[in-house]
Amino acid sequence: MPTIERSRSAERIERDIETLAGADYTLSDEAIRRYAYTDVYRRTLEYFTRELEALGFEVDQDPLGTLVARNRPRGEPVFGVGSHCDSNRNGGKYDGTMGVVTALEVCRLDEELGLGLPLQLISFLEEEGSGFGQMLLGSRIIAQRVTEEELRETFRAMDDGRSFWEHAEQAGYEPARWRECSHVLDDLTGWVEMHIEQARVLQDTGNRIGIVNAIAGYVHADVVVHGRGDHAGATPMDLRLDPTLPMAETIVELERLARAAGKGTVGTVGEIEVEPGIINAIASSLRFSLDIRAPDDDSYRGVARQIASFAEEAARRRGMTAEWTQRQSLAATPMDGRLVEALERAAAATGEPYIQMHSGAAHDTMCVADRVPTAMVFVPCKDGISHHPAEDADPEDAAVAAEIILNAISSLQ
Amino acid sequence: MPTIERSRSAERIERDIETLAGADYTLSDEAIRRYAYTDVYRRTLEYFTRELEALGFEVDQDPLGTLVARNRPRGEPVFGVGSHCDSNRNGGKYDGTMGVVTALEVCRLDEELGLGLPLQLISFLEEEGSGFGQMLLGSRIIAQRVTEEELRETFRAMDDGRSFWEHAEQAGYEPARWRECSHVLDDLTGWVEMHIEQARVLQDTGNRIGIVNAIAGYVHADVVVHGRGDHAGATPMDLRLDPTLPMAETIVELERLARAAGKGTVGTVGEIEVEPGIINAIASSLRFSLDIRAPDDDSYRGVARQIASFAEEAARRRGMTAEWTQRQSLAATPMDGRLVEALERAAAATGEPYIQMHSGAAHDTMCVADRVPTAMVFVPCKDGISHHPAEDADPEDAAVAAEIILNAISSLQ
Repeated sequence: MPTIERSRSAERIERDIETLAGADYTLSDEAIRRYAYTDVYRRTLEYFTRELEALGFEVDQDPLGTLVARNRPRGEPVFGVGSHCDSNRNGGKYDGTMGVVTALEVCRLDEELGLGLPLQLISFLEEEGSGFGQMLLGSRIIAQRVTEEELRETFRAMDDGRSFWEHAEQAGYEPARWRECSHVLDDLTGWVEMHIEQARVLQDTGNRIGIVNAIAGYVHADVVVHGRGDHAGATPMDLRLDPTLPMAETIVELERLARAAGKGTVGTVGEIEVEPGIINAIASSLRFSLDIRAPDDDSYRGVARQIASFAEEAARRRGMTAEWTQRQSLAATPMDGRLVEALERAAAATGEPYIQMHSGAAHDTMCVADRVPTAMVFVPCKDGISHHPAEDADPEDAAVAAEIILNAISSLQ
Repeated sequence: MPTIERSRSAERIERDIETLAGADYTLSDEAIRRYAYTDVYRRTLEYFTRELEALGFEVDQDPLGTLVARNRPRGEPVFGVGSHCDSNRNGGKYDGTMGVVTALEVCRLDEELGLGLPLQLISFLEEEGSGFGQMLLGSRIIAQRVTEEELRETFRAMDDGRSFWEHAEQAGYEPARWRECSHVLDDLTGWVEMHIEQARVLQDTGNRIGIVNAIAGYVHADVVVHGRGDHAGATPMDLRLDPTLPMAETIVELERLARAAGKGTVGTVGEIEVEPGIINAIASSLRFSLDIRAPDDDSYRGVARQIASFAEEAARRRGMTAEWTQRQSLAATPMDGRLVEALERAAAATGEPYIQMHSGAAHDTMCVADRVPTAMVFVPCKDGISHHPAEDADPEDAAVAAEIILNAISSLQ
C-alpha cells in the first residue's frame, strides 16, 4: 500500500472544512445553516467544483443539483465516494460536509500518488431536510423513491411554502427531468460514504474508525392516549382517567423491550404533548412519539409491534384508549460484505484502533445500496454531539478514513 | 323549619344565572369571560346591587370593589353568604356566579319568609385570576395575604401589562386604602360559600349536596431532569442518559404514593416539556409539574417529600440529576365543626341525598377561615366539567343548597 502523509491530508481536510464554515457558506452567524437552492449552497458546490476541476475531474450537476465529478468519461465504471454538504438549520461544520471533503481528499491522494483509480465523487442534495422538510431528499430522488406529485406539490419550502419544483426551477434546475437523476449511480462499481458517527460509541470504546456493516431500519410512530380532563385537586384517584400513566408505563416498557431485543435495538420517546398542559388539570389526552431502530428488520419491527399492543393494553387496563399511528418505516440496509472486508483490511493496515459497527442514523447510502455494493466509514465526533454548532470532529481521523477508503478501493480494482 | 317552595327558588336562581350569561355580562360570545374592572364585571355587580337593594339591603363596595351587602347596620353581627362572580377566561355560567346567586336567594327567602336573619352577602373580586393572573386575589387582599409592592408592581394585567394598582384607580377604586378591605369580615359570626363541585364525586355517588368539611392544602412543584441529548438512532441503550425514564418512573410512583396516603390525597402531573422535543432525539432535559393535595397537611406534604426524593433517586440511579423546585404551597383549611354539623342537620331535613366531603379545589373560603367559622356547600356539576363553556349545573340543586344554608343559619341564631 502507498505511503500517505496523514498530517498533510489532515491539514487539507481542515482547510476545506474551515473554509466552508465561513460567512460565504452559511446563512447563520451562529451555526452552519445551508440547504438547497440558497446562495450559500450554490457557493459550496462551486468550491468543490473548483477543487475537483483542479484535479482534472469533469464536474457536473444532475437535473436537480446533485454534484457529480468523475475522472473517467461517462459510461466507464467508476467507484463512488462522497456524502452531502447541506446542513440542518442549527448545524455544525462536520455532518455531511466532512464526508464530501474526505472524498475530495481521496481524489487528491489518488492524483498525488498517481494511482489512477476510476473515481466518481457525489455530493447529495438535501440530506437533512432543512429546505423542504424531507430527509434524504436528493438520494431518494436518485433512487426514484419519490413521486412527481410529491416534487410538484407535496414537498414545500419551510421558508416560504412554495413547492420544491418551483424552487428548483427558479434556481435554474430542471425538475421535469427528475427521473434522469437515477443515472447518477449508473456507472458505480461500489460506493463508500464517510460520515461523523453522531453518537459516542467510537469515543467511549476508544476507536478512531468505525466500519459500518449495516444501517438500522426504523419505525417512527405516535401514540395518542385519550384520558379525561378533570380538576387535579377535586378528582379522587379512583375517579380519574389520567393518560400520563399509560404513557409512563409505556416509556418504561419500551426501554425493557429494546434491551431485551438486543443486537443494537434502540427505542426512544422524543416528543411529548399534553393537553391542556396546565399544572392543576389532569390531562384530557396526550401524544408521544416513538423512534425504534435496529440493524435487522425483525428486531425493530418486533419491538414496535409489542410496544403498540402494550400501550393499548396499558390504556385499556385503566379504562382509557390508546391509538398507535405509524408515521413511516424504512427497512434496515445491510452493507456489502466484500466491501466491508476490504475496508476492514485497509483499516487494520493503518495500525489505528477500529471496530465494525452499525449505523443507527439514516444516511444517503441507504438509497444507493439497492443498486450498488456499498459501505460506510465513521469517524468519532466529540461527545456524540451533532446537528448543533458545538459539533466537533478531528481532521486527523478523517485523514485516516481517507487512507482506508483509498486503499480499499485500490484493493478491489 | 319553614316550608320553602323549591321550584320557585330554582326558577329565580335560573333566571339570575341566565341573565348574567347574557351579552352584557361577558366579554366573549362563546364563553363566560368576566374579570375585575371590565364593564361586564361592573354591570354584574350592578345587577346584584339592584336585586339586593330591592330586598332592603344596604349595598356597598370595599376600596377595591368587593361587593358587600347587609341587612343590619355596620357593627352589628351578621352571617356571611356568597362567593365570587368573576369567571376564568373560557368559563361557564356556574363557577362562582351560582354561589353568589344562591346567596342572593338565601337573602330573598329570609325576606319572603320574614325570618329576619342578620345577613351579609359578599361577592369576592378576582377569584379566578383572569384579570391579573392571581387566584383568590380579592379574598387574599381581605385576609391581608398580599403586600403593597405586589399590588403596586408585581401583579399586572394579563391584557395590557399595567399594574393592578393602576387598573383599580382607573376604575374609580382606591388601592391606597387596600388595608381597610380587611373590615369586610369584621362583623361576621360565620360564613358559608356555595360552589359547584368541579369534579364528579357527587354525580358518581348519586348525591345532590356535599357538605365540605375541609379544603385541601397543596404543593405545586416542578421537577427538571437533566439528561443528555443524543441521536435517538445512533446511541445504544447502554450509553444513553434519557430523562424520560426517571420521569416515567416518577409518574407511576406518584400514583402509588397518593393512593397509599389515602384520605383524599391526590397527585397529578399536568405539564410536561421535553427539550428539544423531536422524534429522533433523546431529550437533553425535561420538566414536569406536580400538583399534590390532601385535606390534611401531613398527607400532601408527606407525598411531596417522598416523590421529590424518589425523582432525585430515579435520576441518580441512571446517572442523571433531577431538581425539585416548589412553586407554592397552601395549608389545608379545616371547616368549622359546629357549622358543618348545622349544615348536615339542615341537609338531612331536606330528605335529599348528601355527603360530607372535602374540597380538592381552592376557594375564597380559605381566606375567610382564619377569622371566621366557615363551611361550604357543594352542588354537582355535570361530568365534573368546569372552567369551560360546557359547564352545567342544576338550579334545583342550588335551591336545595339555599334551603340548607338558610336553615343552618337560622338554627345557629
